Amino acid sequence: MGIVRVESFSISIDGYGAGPEQSIKHPLGIGGSDLHQWAFPTATFQKVLFNSENGNSGTDDDFAARGFKNIGAWIIGRNMFSPDRGAWTNMKWKGWWGDNPPYHVPVFIVTHFKRPPIYMEGGTSFHFVSGGIHEALHLAREAAKEKDIRIGGGANTIHQYLKAGLIDELHIAISPVLLGSGERLFNGIDMRQLGYECTQFVNSEKATHLILKKST
Amino acid sequence: MGIVRVESFSISIDGYGAGPEQSIKHPLGIGGSDLHQWAFPTATFQKVLFNSENGNSGTDDDFAARGFKNIGAWIIGRNMFSPDRGAWTNMKWKGWWGDNPPYHVPVFIVTHFKRPPIYMEGGTSFHFVSGGIHEALHLAREAAKEKDIRIGGGANTIHQYLKAGLIDELHIAISPVLLGSGERLFNGIDMRQLGYECTQFVNSEKATHLILKKST
Repeated sequence: MGIVRVESFSISIDGYGAGPEQSIKHPLGIGGSDLHQWAFPTATFQKVLFNSENGNSGTDDDFAARGFKNIGAWIIGRNMFSPDRGAWTNMKWKGWWGDNPPYHVPVFIVTHFKRPPIYMEGGTSFHFVSGGIHEALHLAREAAKEKDIRIGGGANTIHQYLKAGLIDELHIAISPVLLGSGERLFNGIDMRQLGYECTQFVNSEKATHLILKKST
Repeated sequence: MGIVRVESFSISIDGYGAGPEQSIKHPLGIGGSDLHQWAFPTATFQKVLFNSENGNSGTDDDFAARGFKNIGAWIIGRNMFSPDRGAWTNMKWKGWWGDNPPYHVPVFIVTHFKRPPIYMEGGTSFHFVSGGIHEALHLAREAAKEKDIRIGGGANTIHQYLKAGLIDELHIAISPVLLGSGERLFNGIDMRQLGYECTQFVNSEKATHLILKKST
């Protein structure tokens, strides 16, 4: 059975994983894209997001790349899929990522509001799960078979899985920026008590990369 | 006039500047000393704390050293001086640092409870200020003359000075450990709104060093 991983989750110096006031103009909240300056130029992100061959190799790319290796399914929160809240009104909305999203596997979206699945180009499909995080994980495991499951975010979704003890490993990147407000990954959660420890600490010029694992 | 600086303030991956349950046995709270593993082996700390010449040079020491350069006075919170809370009962307590503390300049201690000053060996004196952070800064400025003032901590004291807009510069070290709970430096404070930005980002093998400055 695969493991459950968080990958390339960037936080600011002051601990925020996204800026405030997410909207169609600011998918990552105001200032949120500053968090990802280490990731955008990497070969992995350039290829995955822009189908470009012009990205950089090196430490940042090594960490970006591991986030796409051996992933059989993703789980994301509804706010990561859409800037809207509440019941689905705009059924034309198919995510931020165009016709061929960067997932290429089934993506399970945790939401309170049901909606039929959407099948995109390139192997990505979006499945809306209204039964909570455990149901989403169950479905993701079935879809992923022996491969790993990546919890994409946002902070609130990761939070719920952390509290339930369901995440095996996290790659966190601390970017040298201050966001001031927004969503915090480590608020109201005792990572030490939950059994996590830092097993790897590698720096690039643009970020501090950390691997947190559940000690067995 | 000198500037007001925070130096060598270490926080964990999850943002804590000290562990929980500070006591005589755990001056930095449980797990808190893990935060300072980058600092202890440096030439600066070995010299200042243990009068040893056997410390290491390098990035960590560069950052440790700047914390002692051109400092004319310190300001610390009462909890950094003593594990006791409330009115002073143990008048024999003269801090954690022995007869010759590592400050060698006047130290102003922000407390609700008055107490006569204490004059230690090596030029350190402890002055107990019950009139709040502004009075402490006023007295520290008088004592420091043209030199800088270092706000030692803890998190709560730094917090008060940050909110009052009185800190010019902070050196923060992020250590690759999880504390899980304790005192958070950046809780309830919007560093971006207060006008701070990260101006320097340097990594060692043991910590990520950041300089935060108020933009003018």
